[in-house]
Amino acid sequence: VAQWFNTDSDITLDALRGRVVLLHAFQMLCPGCVAQGLPQAMKVQQLFPASEVVVLGLHTVFEHHAAMGADALEVFLHEYRISFPVGVDSPVRGHPVPATMQAYALRGTPSLVVIDHKGVVRLNHLGHLDDLQLGALLGTLVSQRPDTSEPSSQVGEAVSPGVHQAALNEAPPKACDDTHCKIG
Amino acid sequence: VAQWFNTDSDITLDALRGRVVLLHAFQMLCPGCVAQGLPQAMKVQQLFPASEVVVLGLHTVFEHHAAMGADALEVFLHEYRISFPVGVDSPVRGHPVPATMQAYALRGTPSLVVIDHKGVVRLNHLGHLDDLQLGALLGTLVSQRPDTSEPSSQVGEAVSPGVHQAALNEAPPKACDDTHCKIG
Amino acid sequence: VAQWFNTDSDITLDALRGRVVLLHAFQMLCPGCVAQGLPQAMKVQQLFPASEVVVLGLHTVFEHHAAMGADALEVFLHEYRISFPVGVDSPVRGHPVPATMQAYALRGTPSLVVIDHKGVVRLNHLGHLDDLQLGALLGTLVSQRPDTSEPSSQVGEAVSPGVHQAALNEAPPKACDDTHCKIG
Amino acid sequence: VAQWFNTDSDITLDALRGRVVLLHAFQMLCPGCVAQGLPQAMKVQQLFPASEVVVLGLHTVFEHHAAMGADALEVFLHEYRISFPVGVDSPVRGHPVPATMQAYALRGTPSLVVIDHKGVVRLNHLGHLDDLQLGALLGTLVSQRPDTSEPSSQVGEAVSPGVHQAALNEAPPKACDDTHCKIG
Repeated sequence: VAQWFNTDSDITLDALRGRVVLLHAFQMLCPGCVAQGLPQAMKVQQLFPASEVVVLGLHTVFEHHAAMGADALEVFLHEYRISFPVGVDSPVRGHPVPATMQAYALRGTPSLVVIDHKGVVRLNHLGHLDDLQLGALLGTLVSQRPDTSEPSSQVGEAVSPGVHQAALNEAPPKACDDTHCKIG
Repeated sequence: VAQWFNTDSDITLDALRGRVVLLHAFQMLCPGCVAQGLPQAMKVQQLFPASEVVVLGLHTVFEHHAAMGADALEVFLHEYRISFPVGVDSPVRGHPVPATMQAYALRGTPSLVVIDHKGVVRLNHLGHLDDLQLGALLGTLVSQRPDTSEPSSQVGEAVSPGVHQAALNEAPPKACDDTHCKIG
Repeated sequence: VAQWFNTDSDITLDALRGRVVLLHAFQMLCPGCVAQGLPQAMKVQQLFPASEVVVLGLHTVFEHHAAMGADALEVFLHEYRISFPVGVDSPVRGHPVPATMQAYALRGTPSLVVIDHKGVVRLNHLGHLDDLQLGALLGTLVSQRPDTSEPSSQVGEAVSPGVHQAALNEAPPKACDDTHCKIG
Repeated sequence: VAQWFNTDSDITLDALRGRVVLLHAFQMLCPGCVAQGLPQAMKVQQLFPASEVVVLGLHTVFEHHAAMGADALEVFLHEYRISFPVGVDSPVRGHPVPATMQAYALRGTPSLVVIDHKGVVRLNHLGHLDDLQLGALLGTLVSQRPDTSEPSSQVGEAVSPGVHQAALNEAPPKACDDTHCKIG
C-alpha cells in the first residue's frame, strides 16, 4: 500500500491477527462499487464492533489511473462519508494492475476478501455478495475465534455477542446528504 | 398449532433440537409481512441447508379473522410460492390473539423468533431485521452447535460450511411470476 | 360491477367523461399487484387532482374466487389504505373470468387501462409500466382535454397546471404501517 | 459552457427552440447525482425521441474543483455510459460557483431545469423529482408544442405519440456492467 486515508498509522494484517478482516477492493469510478460494495462495507463497519471485524478499503486502480489519483480519492471518501481506513494499492511499474491486487489475484472491482482470525483467506469474491450471505460468513468466523466467550442466552434484541445495539439505525453524518449537495 | 401446510406431518420444536430454528410469524394481509418478512424467510430457507437452519412460518391472525381463514391462507401460500412449513396458530376462545402468539409474547406481525440448537429463544423481534444482522446471528448460532466440525480453510467462494453454493441465485418457481398473473 | 367500495354511489364512465381515467385491474392475492401496481395507482391518485385524472380500482378475480370474496377485499383495502373507489367485477356464471375483464379483453393482473377525456381507451397494458412512461402518458392526455387552459409560465416547483403541490411528500395514513401491524 | 462531451458541435438553447429541454446539473462526486439524478436523465433520454425532448448534462462543479476536472469527467462519463451531451460549466474567476449555475440561480446538485418549446424555464428543482411527476411535466410540455399533431387514438401499448416503443426495456451497453469492472 502506497498511502493510507482515515488512519493515523499504517495498518498491517499481522497487527489485526485475532480479528476477522473484511477487505473491500474498489475503484472510485466503478459503478458497482459505489452503488453496492461501499454501502455494504459501511454497514458491516456499523454492525460489528472493531474488536471483532475490521473493515478496510483498498483502492485498486487498474484503469484510468490519471482520473483516480490520491487527491481525487480523498474528496471521494469525504463526499461519500467513508470512515474506515482506505489504502491506495501500490502501482507496479509497467503494469496497469497494482501490487496488492496482483498478490491476492483479485479479478476486478468490487472484490470482497474476508480473512479469519488466523490470517487465512476465507473468501475472495468478485461482484456483490448478498447481505444475508456475508452476514452468515462473518457471524461464523467471529464465533470461531478462540477468545469468543459463550454468549449469554439473553432473550430479545441481542443479536449476537458483540454486535452494536441498534447500530444500523444510526445514520452516519454526511457532507452532501443522500439526495443532494447544496451550495454552502 | 391448529393446522399445518407444506408438511406431511406435524412439527414439534423438540424434534428440531440440534438445529437453529427461524420462526416467522405473519398475517397474510399484513403489508410489512408480504413486502419484507416473507421474502427474507424464503431467502434464509434457500441459503442455509435444512440440517442447520429450519424455517417455519406461523400464521398468527389477531385481527380480521374471517378474511384470513385457512382456505385463504392456502391460496396465499400457493400464489406467493412459499414452500416452508406454515402452521396456523390456534385461536383462543374469547380472545383475538391466538395461543402461540400469546405463549411467545409476540407483539405483532411480522415477528422473527430465532431459537438455538438447545431450544433457547435468542431473538424475538417485531418488524424487519436487516439481512446483514440476521445473517450474522444465524451464522453465529450455526457455529455454536456442538456437531459443527471445523470448517475447511478453503479459499474462494465457500461462504460457510453448510451454506448452499450459489443458493441465492436460484429463483424459486412461481405460479404468478413477480410481475403479473396471466389468465391461463 | 357487482359492488363498490370507497364510494357512496355507483360510478359510471359516462359520468367521468371530460376527465382522464386510470383503471387498475388487480386481484388481492396477486403479488405483482400488491408490490407494484397498487402503490403506483395510489401515487397517481396523490399526484393528479381528481378533476383531471380519476383513479379507479377493479377487483377482477379469475382464479381462487373463494379466497378473494368481497369481505376479504374490504379488509385488504383497509390494511393497505387504498382510498380510491374499487369495484368488484361481476362474476359470469360458468366462466372463471368476470364480465368487465372480458369486456376490456384484459389478459391478467395487474392491468392498466387508461381512458382519455372522450372515453377512448388509450392504453391496455398487462404488467407493470414504468412511472416515467405512465406519467408522460397522463400528462399528455390531461393536456389534450379541451378545457385545459394555457398553463401559466411560472418558474420553479410548479410541475404542471393541476398537479398537487408536493403531493408525493404526504404519506397517507396507515392502519398497519409499512413495516408491521401491532397488537392494539 | 467551457467544453462539451458527447457532441460534435457546441449546443445552444436557441438551436433547440421548438423542443422541450431537460437540463440535468450534476457533479461527478455528488452521491445523489450518481444514485438518482443521472439514471433518471438517462431514462428520459431513452423514453422520449430527441425530436421532442432533448436531454443535456451540465457539470456544475462548485467544490473540490481539482478532483473533478475535465479529464476525470471524461472517464466518469465513459464508465457510467452517459451518452447525452454534457457541458462543463465555465468557471468564474474568484468565485467557486460557475457561470451557468449562477445564471440559472441553481442552488446545488442535482438540479433539474426543464425548458419548454418557447424557451421558458418551467421547472428549476434541487434534489430528486419522482419519475411520475417528471413524466407528467414532460408529457404536458411535449403536448403543448404547436407542431404536435393530434395523436392517433390507437388502443394498446402506444403510450404517447412520440414515445419510443419499449424504449425502457433496452439496456444501454456498459463498460463496467452494473455490478463490477473486470480486469480486461
